Amino acid sequence: MDLILCNGIIVTPTEMYRADLGIENGKIVAIGADLSGVLCSERLDVAGKLILPGAIDAHTHLSFPFGGTVSADDFFAGTRAAACGGTTTVFDYSSQAPGERLVETVRRREAQAKAEGAAVDFALHVGITDLSNGLLDSMQEAVDYGVSSFKIYMVYDFGVKDGDFYRVLQKSKETGSLICVHAENKEILTELTNRFAAEGKLSPWYHYASRPEFVAGEADRRAIDWAKSLNAPLYIVHLSDLEGVRAVTQARDEGFEIYAETCPQYLHFTCDVFKREDGRNFVCSPPMKDQPSREALWGAVRRGDIDTIATDHCPFQQAEKDWGKDDFRKIPNGCSGVEIMYPYMLSKANLGEITFPRAVELCAANPARIFVCAEKGSLAVGKDADIVVYDPNREFIVHQENMHSDCDHTIWEGLRLHGYPVRTYSRGRLVYDNGAFVGERGWGKMLKRLPRKR
Amino acid sequence: MDLILCNGIIVTPTEMYRADLGIENGKIVAIGADLSGVLCSERLDVAGKLILPGAIDAHTHLSFPFGGTVSADDFFAGTRAAACGGTTTVFDYSSQAPGERLVETVRRREAQAKAEGAAVDFALHVGITDLSNGLLDSMQEAVDYGVSSFKIYMVYDFGVKDGDFYRVLQKSKETGSLICVHAENKEILTELTNRFAAEGKLSPWYHYASRPEFVAGEADRRAIDWAKSLNAPLYIVHLSDLEGVRAVTQARDEGFEIYAETCPQYLHFTCDVFKREDGRNFVCSPPMKDQPSREALWGAVRRGDIDTIATDHCPFQQAEKDWGKDDFRKIPNGCSGVEIMYPYMLSKANLGEITFPRAVELCAANPARIFVCAEKGSLAVGKDADIVVYDPNREFIVHQENMHSDCDHTIWEGLRLHGYPVRTYSRGRLVYDNGAFVGERGWGKMLKRLPRKR
Amino acid sequence: MDLILCNGIIVTPTEMYRADLGIENGKIVAIGADLSGVLCSERLDVAGKLILPGAIDAHTHLSFPFGGTVSADDFFAGTRAAACGGTTTVFDYSSQAPGERLVETVRRREAQAKAEGAAVDFALHVGITDLSNGLLDSMQEAVDYGVSSFKIYMVYDFGVKDGDFYRVLQKSKETGSLICVHAENKEILTELTNRFAAEGKLSPWYHYASRPEFVAGEADRRAIDWAKSLNAPLYIVHLSDLEGVRAVTQARDEGFEIYAETCPQYLHFTCDVFKREDGRNFVCSPPMKDQPSREALWGAVRRGDIDTIATDHCPFQQAEKDWGKDDFRKIPNGCSGVEIMYPYMLSKANLGEITFPRAVELCAANPARIFVCAEKGSLAVGKDADIVVYDPNREFIVHQENMHSDCDHTIWEGLRLHGYPVRTYSRGRLVYDNGAFVGERGWGKMLKRLPRKR
Amino acid sequence: MDLILCNGIIVTPTEMYRADLGIENGKIVAIGADLSGVLCSERLDVAGKLILPGAIDAHTHLSFPFGGTVSADDFFAGTRAAACGGTTTVFDYSSQAPGERLVETVRRREAQAKAEGAAVDFALHVGITDLSNGLLDSMQEAVDYGVSSFKIYMVYDFGVKDGDFYRVLQKSKETGSLICVHAENKEILTELTNRFAAEGKLSPWYHYASRPEFVAGEADRRAIDWAKSLNAPLYIVHLSDLEGVRAVTQARDEGFEIYAETCPQYLHFTCDVFKREDGRNFVCSPPMKDQPSREALWGAVRRGDIDTIATDHCPFQQAEKDWGKDDFRKIPNGCSGVEIMYPYMLSKANLGEITFPRAVELCAANPARIFVCAEKGSLAVGKDADIVVYDPNREFIVHQENMHSDCDHTIWEGLRLHGYPVRTYSRGRLVYDNGAFVGERGWGKMLKRLPRKR
Repeated sequence: MDLILCNGIIVTPTEMYRADLGIENGKIVAIGADLSGVLCSERLDVAGKLILPGAIDAHTHLSFPFGGTVSADDFFAGTRAAACGGTTTVFDYSSQAPGERLVETVRRREAQAKAEGAAVDFALHVGITDLSNGLLDSMQEAVDYGVSSFKIYMVYDFGVKDGDFYRVLQKSKETGSLICVHAENKEILTELTNRFAAEGKLSPWYHYASRPEFVAGEADRRAIDWAKSLNAPLYIVHLSDLEGVRAVTQARDEGFEIYAETCPQYLHFTCDVFKREDGRNFVCSPPMKDQPSREALWGAVRRGDIDTIATDHCPFQQAEKDWGKDDFRKIPNGCSGVEIMYPYMLSKANLGEITFPRAVELCAANPARIFVCAEKGSLAVGKDADIVVYDPNREFIVHQENMHSDCDHTIWEGLRLHGYPVRTYSRGRLVYDNGAFVGERGWGKMLKRLPRKR
Repeated sequence: MDLILCNGIIVTPTEMYRADLGIENGKIVAIGADLSGVLCSERLDVAGKLILPGAIDAHTHLSFPFGGTVSADDFFAGTRAAACGGTTTVFDYSSQAPGERLVETVRRREAQAKAEGAAVDFALHVGITDLSNGLLDSMQEAVDYGVSSFKIYMVYDFGVKDGDFYRVLQKSKETGSLICVHAENKEILTELTNRFAAEGKLSPWYHYASRPEFVAGEADRRAIDWAKSLNAPLYIVHLSDLEGVRAVTQARDEGFEIYAETCPQYLHFTCDVFKREDGRNFVCSPPMKDQPSREALWGAVRRGDIDTIATDHCPFQQAEKDWGKDDFRKIPNGCSGVEIMYPYMLSKANLGEITFPRAVELCAANPARIFVCAEKGSLAVGKDADIVVYDPNREFIVHQENMHSDCDHTIWEGLRLHGYPVRTYSRGRLVYDNGAFVGERGWGKMLKRLPRKR
Repeated sequence: MDLILCNGIIVTPTEMYRADLGIENGKIVAIGADLSGVLCSERLDVAGKLILPGAIDAHTHLSFPFGGTVSADDFFAGTRAAACGGTTTVFDYSSQAPGERLVETVRRREAQAKAEGAAVDFALHVGITDLSNGLLDSMQEAVDYGVSSFKIYMVYDFGVKDGDFYRVLQKSKETGSLICVHAENKEILTELTNRFAAEGKLSPWYHYASRPEFVAGEADRRAIDWAKSLNAPLYIVHLSDLEGVRAVTQARDEGFEIYAETCPQYLHFTCDVFKREDGRNFVCSPPMKDQPSREALWGAVRRGDIDTIATDHCPFQQAEKDWGKDDFRKIPNGCSGVEIMYPYMLSKANLGEITFPRAVELCAANPARIFVCAEKGSLAVGKDADIVVYDPNREFIVHQENMHSDCDHTIWEGLRLHGYPVRTYSRGRLVYDNGAFVGERGWGKMLKRLPRKR
Repeated sequence: MDLILCNGIIVTPTEMYRADLGIENGKIVAIGADLSGVLCSERLDVAGKLILPGAIDAHTHLSFPFGGTVSADDFFAGTRAAACGGTTTVFDYSSQAPGERLVETVRRREAQAKAEGAAVDFALHVGITDLSNGLLDSMQEAVDYGVSSFKIYMVYDFGVKDGDFYRVLQKSKETGSLICVHAENKEILTELTNRFAAEGKLSPWYHYASRPEFVAGEADRRAIDWAKSLNAPLYIVHLSDLEGVRAVTQARDEGFEIYAETCPQYLHFTCDVFKREDGRNFVCSPPMKDQPSREALWGAVRRGDIDTIATDHCPFQQAEKDWGKDDFRKIPNGCSGVEIMYPYMLSKANLGEITFPRAVELCAANPARIFVCAEKGSLAVGKDADIVVYDPNREFIVHQENMHSDCDHTIWEGLRLHGYPVRTYSRGRLVYDNGAFVGERGWGKMLKRLPRKR
């Protein structure tokens, strides 16, 4: 074998147990009580450490044109940061250009990723923005090519209306794909924004005030309504509010296949951050909500009514954030997160707020299952050797300097974590070692995925 | 006194008791155990009969331009039919013309009503269709003039979007007026309609199939969401579906001021009527729904979570209905109802499905209270003498020939009723007598109403 | 006529209007716009005053043996206090003695009431405590005699178990009677009481702590379960907790005939009173609950999911309350309330928290309807002239000295009320006049009631 | 190694993958992509077969004295049947004798199990029946001895009342144990039974009719109420009804630690079986319910709101069942199930109604986790080699002749299954081989379990 990790504690979505783990040709090939008798090139004693599957961040925006600029991390920088945080697969939301067939979007972004050179493996979702001229029919081509998940926005200029939402859902059922939705009510947030602007209320707080709880809650319910009417699966991205948690929970209790994702920023912060001096840095959409929403999200995370943690990683440089210092409408929406997601959730596990198996389920097993990444997401024999060695006794404080994004600041500055990854392997190759990125630009491959079973 | 009705049973929203009732100058001036000693011009023994307040039909469309034609009943014919069915006040939904200030709509329609000559009193709601150029600000003028209720449509070309809906609600709070809403999801019904059309599915059944339960349920919830977010009162017209009943009930249980109206067609028929040979005649929007919805509506009527019964009276001639014989999209939407509403509900009371006081509450007291018709809606001393004498032992079968609308057919043909009005008084004047209209064109006056208390 | 009240504002459960009201032979005989032309013995101008139906307190305990003593007010003192607070009918819960046929209980208590001499009319409920030896079959006799409502306790030594509860409900359906239930879980409150006692926790606070919200909530749900299983009507007395409000609301929304009563003490106080120096004086069962429960009760009162206000009037003298100064188990359970109920609710109406019609519905019309007091509860022609003249501008502060109970203290000491009754008539006879009781012992008659319609 | 299973498909609670599995000294020691190079005593090619963890039946009654006799299977016969159905661990509910300390119950039954000779491993729960004289305090001794789960009955003569239920829950929190509850309302079922008996209604149908849905639903809610009030975990055995499913789901959504178990008989049959000629054979408590309950149970099984499948295995011989041919009260309550549980659930997985991982979670991983059987329940390295080889293409029809219980009939007669176990290993020893029991009496050991983490 190429590598054997000895004496660690293996964490699966349902249990933790001591075992040795062997890797060969980038795959996990053996888990044994004692692999000391097996020949191998390298043998690493990880006693006292946890052996975890690499995380999957199912929601990032790399080289993403938005808000008059482009997000700060390209495919290389974003995946480098991912690797250093124990995330070994990222999904990018690639937006369809007007008039573009969906498979063309995939090919265009695949080429861009190749040119930029990803450091770990990645997959694409396609953000649907133009359904005119039969473009929706091109969904099948994208699925055939290996992209079986799509996103629609209920907000922004490129958002879709309810009729198109319904058509997209119907098409997803025909093609075995999964629709992800950004659920906020565009009409109401625009009305509120205009009202506050007319009143001269333009500080970052009014970003939240123009997109309060009910603006998300209504859209969550409406999105679920359409999914229920078609009995189509639906995945709600970055769920942020109590009403949304209730709507998702109820639909699931009724037997519908509704998935929900949330992000560390909604679990950790509340809307109070928008009152801070640097409130503009926290501006993302949807905004962080009130404390009851935060608590409701944690409840759903604990009991399993939220399936996945992802980041919506979409950082902008400080100078760009500053555009909106005096007018929240000019702040590019988005924050960093890809490097901090797994450490954040594992630290919560380490502190007893969730279990380690649950953290692994949320950050690795569930996104792999939901988005049909057959080769990722667990430490099972035969899977890609995307592995994190985690030291539960290591203390870590987040600083801009110890992060690996190209962005020049982070909303997580000063965050104290209990436990931290010490090694990350991508398909058996060491890419992160004790604080340092040791991978290479271009190592990462694009994952082609099968459609969902219908 | 001018008239004393002796020995009848007076029905209020909470009780029934034997008493004499005296009328003078168009007002109720006395209720007494024995008014035999009082001088009066006319004394009518109504032993064995019920004395009821005249009904208020808060939802009619008279001389209503719609679907490429105009509804069959003008202000005279519609109110003549009303009088003959025991309804002594009708509300007309008058639609704002593009660019028209809301008070101009009121004045224009008031003039039209005067020209056509109403047979009983009437009031106006204004249907808001154009909010551009500050026209919303003209709401205050209309309220000052005496119209304190407005309607918005979530469907049709003149429907408003969510942002405008929100603005209208906010303005209604400022002006002490009440917003009435037609709640269906325009985007989804259009998508479904287009789909069925593309498949050649154009029979009347597809009118229902393109506006099924969830198309109304979602819109009901959304409308309530906006009202809740502003803590504004809201009145949902022609509630037709189970999900809507649930949404209304829940919001009321939470303490919000949400009113709901339903119509006899939703209580009596189900969507099965669209399979009938004459299914096109039943086409109205929203369409009648499935049996669980019908049962849910009755449940809400019984327990008080529906406040009012109205008719959405908007009949079209048979020849016009026939336009859509082979294409439901060409059928003018609307049916007759104003003459049958009160007899229908009273017949249900007579059969024990609801109580007589509840029928009076739904058809008279509640619409008077909700829409601030201070002089109508009950048999209290000081109120207008709008009175119905009802014979609970009279059997009646609805036929086109014994109805008083100008429309040439009725969806209620053959309906068997137990009990029927024998006399109707409008401000003390006899306008209906035992099957015959005995009133006069132009007798009816427009009611000017105060704003709601805030 | 004997008496005409002129120029007052008449309040019904649905409206308020100016009219004159005429009384003859103890009955209301006329309501008129102007009765100035009618001959009468006495004419009283009540301009600026409200004319209200006398209240019905459906829950009192007069001469009630309990907690090792007898409640402080007998039939005379209790009804004298009632009269002075505008309550013209009281219901007494008369407890079956062991082995006693239910009609015997009625006769025994009727005789006692006659001997003690009620000042206003009264009715009886019978508290069922012994179902052995076929005594349940005697329910029909009591109904035939004129008592069609019974109470069961889920607590106390004389409480019934679930099987007997079920039998009682079934029998109530057969006899057209209504079961009232005191719902708390006896087993759990006993367990908690024993636990606190073992820990030496015996202050009045532990009266509440041993009967907290869930002890009532569970029993409320269970009681409703049995009623639902039989589709039997059920009346929950002194509802005090949020969970109970939810359970009642849900069952009503499902269409079941569940009634709920609450009392001013649950609307006004919270469990914090048990921390007061004089906490023992507030000890009653169920105890006042936390603030969310109080708010939930007000919400249900406003929207109509609580039907009646009653008092559970059962005061004990200070010396008796003091028995439990150091041991809450020794405090006789019960407080005064009968004189304050109507003024309290009317004051809330005067302050705009509810409407006057709603206050009249809760305190007069609803108890009359639910308990089939055909001759009481409203100002309709033909009803008993049980009338209150209310001055909305009179300020009143409750003091022991201005109350008319025989009890030597009141938990309402210092309560400031806005508006107060100035006159009370019982069957046309003035019994209270501007602070003074002017009635007579023995004036009050026992009401015999019909069974409910089945 | 002792044994290597090659080329099978390993099933975990979250995935399925092809791998070889190696066993040594009764433990799973390796899972590898290719263990062909490893020395071993026996190598078995299981290509085309599934490799599953042995099931855990957390609910059996072996040698159980009940209903005037003793259940038909002793520890040997019951575990022999278990082994032949792929169940490698059974939990027995051992009932405390009056006055017995709980640890004595454990020792007594442990001795009995040893004498009878179990064929696979087993664990004990203790059924608490006597709390007098401080016996509850003996719970800690039982936990120290290795039994950390207890059962209480809300029914039967030995059932506990609510106050004791509360005390038991509190004690379970102190000792880190889990309370299992049989939830039906004893009072109501007794009342209904007596009523039917009085009417001569004694056929098996009345077993169901006297314990209908609401009798279980109410008790489910009540049990959950007590658990919630103490924030104590609770495990509801044999959940059978829709209302119970709702109550469990709601409590879990609120964040409470409520577990639910159901049994194949509630998933497969409805109350209609009690109308069959052999209806008496199906009599068990709780009885099978109506079709909506059955569907609700399947919904909860699919979405995870039911945690475990167990059997309540408690068969009685035909002659004993016949005692109640004409009087359901004389039928010993209980049916067989231990041999059929895993094949039944796996067959449903094979047919696509649930996934194989979900079947493994329900039947093995969850009971191991919930009841702290650290060495059982999964195929992880280090666990006991309790393994089932399952042929998904084998058809099997249940007949009395191919079952291995001592009972002389089965309610599952004629059941057609798709797929069936072909081999069962208990700690690495083959105990079942293709239809035949090949284990030995006395092989099974008692599992001693740790307390739950608090």
